[in-house]
Amino acid sequence: MSAAESPASAGRAARFRNTASVIDRTRTFFEEAHRRGLMAVYGHSGLGRAVSLTAGDRRGNTITDYVRCSYLGLDNHPAIVAGAITAVEEYGSLHWSCARTRLNFGLIGDLEGTLSQLFGARVIAYSTVMVANMGALPIIASGHLTEGQKPVMVFDRLAHASLAFHKPVVAQETQVETIPHSDLDALEQICRKHPVVAYVCDGVYSMGGFAPIKELLRLQEKYGLFLYIDDAHGISLFGNNGEGFVRSQLPPELGERTIVAASLGKGFGASGGMLMLGTVHQEALFRCYSLPHAFSASPNVAAVGAALASAKIHQTAELKLRQERLAERIAFFDKHIETDQRGALLPIRMIKVGDEFAAIKFAERLLDEGFYTSVTFFPTVAQGRSGIRICLTASHELSDLEQLCAKIACYEQEALTAA
Amino acid sequence: MSAAESPASAGRAARFRNTASVIDRTRTFFEEAHRRGLMAVYGHSGLGRAVSLTAGDRRGNTITDYVRCSYLGLDNHPAIVAGAITAVEEYGSLHWSCARTRLNFGLIGDLEGTLSQLFGARVIAYSTVMVANMGALPIIASGHLTEGQKPVMVFDRLAHASLAFHKPVVAQETQVETIPHSDLDALEQICRKHPVVAYVCDGVYSMGGFAPIKELLRLQEKYGLFLYIDDAHGISLFGNNGEGFVRSQLPPELGERTIVAASLGKGFGASGGMLMLGTVHQEALFRCYSLPHAFSASPNVAAVGAALASAKIHQTAELKLRQERLAERIAFFDKHIETDQRGALLPIRMIKVGDEFAAIKFAERLLDEGFYTSVTFFPTVAQGRSGIRICLTASHELSDLEQLCAKIACYEQEALTAA
Repeated sequence: MSAAESPASAGRAARFRNTASVIDRTRTFFEEAHRRGLMAVYGHSGLGRAVSLTAGDRRGNTITDYVRCSYLGLDNHPAIVAGAITAVEEYGSLHWSCARTRLNFGLIGDLEGTLSQLFGARVIAYSTVMVANMGALPIIASGHLTEGQKPVMVFDRLAHASLAFHKPVVAQETQVETIPHSDLDALEQICRKHPVVAYVCDGVYSMGGFAPIKELLRLQEKYGLFLYIDDAHGISLFGNNGEGFVRSQLPPELGERTIVAASLGKGFGASGGMLMLGTVHQEALFRCYSLPHAFSASPNVAAVGAALASAKIHQTAELKLRQERLAERIAFFDKHIETDQRGALLPIRMIKVGDEFAAIKFAERLLDEGFYTSVTFFPTVAQGRSGIRICLTASHELSDLEQLCAKIACYEQEALTAA
Repeated sequence: MSAAESPASAGRAARFRNTASVIDRTRTFFEEAHRRGLMAVYGHSGLGRAVSLTAGDRRGNTITDYVRCSYLGLDNHPAIVAGAITAVEEYGSLHWSCARTRLNFGLIGDLEGTLSQLFGARVIAYSTVMVANMGALPIIASGHLTEGQKPVMVFDRLAHASLAFHKPVVAQETQVETIPHSDLDALEQICRKHPVVAYVCDGVYSMGGFAPIKELLRLQEKYGLFLYIDDAHGISLFGNNGEGFVRSQLPPELGERTIVAASLGKGFGASGGMLMLGTVHQEALFRCYSLPHAFSASPNVAAVGAALASAKIHQTAELKLRQERLAERIAFFDKHIETDQRGALLPIRMIKVGDEFAAIKFAERLLDEGFYTSVTFFPTVAQGRSGIRICLTASHELSDLEQLCAKIACYEQEALTAA
């Protein structure tokens, strides 16, 4: 994989991406999932994780949502909703369309100050993690964060699509390698061969699993490895201030060689993304040269107000309570259903089905019973390894979860009997 | 330019991008502009285009803003602000963190329906134009919009950075060429040589000027040229429904070979971006395979509510009134100050200064007089061609504009005298 993707051997046959082939190979799965009402679902918020469907064949039905990544159940928290509204009222505007290098709502300065204190880092807010990642990778590749020496950029094979997408852009700047998922030996070999290496990975992987943070810190200490870790799915779930899966395992000072990307949605419960930077130098560069900073891609003021309100919640006992409620639900699920993720403190669980159409059928039956889950297939997971993704949250009712587990167990049993 | 950038000759010396060099060549300009208080400005909304500064040496000052691209002055329109608030109240959430391929607020379906009717196209909404562009280019490159034949992708040399950024990604899929700005002969030559060609350009260029839409349509008719035009700066300013600079010049049916990207901020006055597509086939592909659609990058519900409110304004006489007020201000400016854009109906005016530090000084003097404009320098414009960008809007007071013009004329005269 890494050899095939290095620029030296890049040619027509060895590509970072091939959209035409992905479309050809997945079109029928997407069409079937749409036909079964599993995709492009529209609805209205209900209490907790309830959603009433407003379109399609199931219009009028109320389902329990296991799709949203609001792991602490904060995305309909009254204080966060009020924070969004108050900010828009106070500023008399939702959005100023100009570059952040020019004019900013004063409130986003407040937010970045608050988040910086909360997470022990220099925080910049973005409208999405997607644009935060897009802006960050070329700056890292430039070598300006590693004393002028361009790093070899090593991507984990399962690094999120919003990172992997930019490999060809990064390859214009420096050497790009891709290593097998969490393969520390492969990473260390590259560290031995090259004076400066940057590793790009997820903190918590969206399809299950997590980065070996302690081991990565060991490589950082030994070789000066630069780390860029997207903790979109880990933020808020761990740490006294909700620093998240990655930041809560790092030393108090982030230092010169670690950047953490994270979501202001998902666990955090507002809207947008952020970067946690370690130094004044990094912050100055990102505030000039990150593409979303240089153009009109600022979070809107509703997102800023919501994030400030969530930051307040992060400083109260409510955060720990919600973290505990989540842990309780994860343990409950694990007691009933076996998955590769069993025992991990993270809220994503993958039910393996295998065949794409069988997975779609599985998810359809769950939806008919009132449980909306994510059917996952290639290119999100490998071909023939389709399954069902369950996002557990602090605000799922245990009774609802119990019924979901019973259905999953039943369908798995049926599949075994049929095989 | 085009030869140097074609994949056949791409090597270490012939790159699409070089972030390290851009940083090295511009660092001192950015630092000086920050030092003078021209960048990273923070403020609070005032009436019309007034902003009271909340940080820095000029804290407490109220300035008139010529930086924001709210060309119709809609970004603090009470109905749009109310639309944002009502939507958040009604949904009891600001944002659902999940892919648009999964679960959506019902309201975004309403918005896309409304915009589709308004603009005579199949509209998909995005959180920013930046992610709309990012999602679109690989799908066009795949050939799935051009009967399975991959197009040669031709970028205008001045196509916006949020398009040009992805050239290396697109080059993984198909041949990429870059032609001189609006060079129709160069484009036609490529059309003659290759069976399928797609041209990627801006409708209205952010640093002045616009695409020759009629001539591009002629090439489309003659050669089947596919057009992807980013009209972020042209939307709402033209057309009875505010279809914008590009869409208002296209036939009633968008057809199979034209896609228009546009902003839901800027002239439109809300927050986010959109694509205007022509066919059911295109829409189905974008709703499955566009990267921001497949991950949690949906516009938040405040943005959706604001956009719905703006769409309503687009259907009233107020739109035409604001378009006329803008035209009046453009004519007023042109009467007083000569620029390359004089006479064009578009609201961006560039004052040429030349030297980077002189341009920074020019903008600083204007800011000291209470006029906040954008100093522009490399890489946004060519090196040694720095200047001042003025964004005119329908809600600038003529008296304020008159004073701004007087100051510009005075500083230009001083520079002439000194030379």
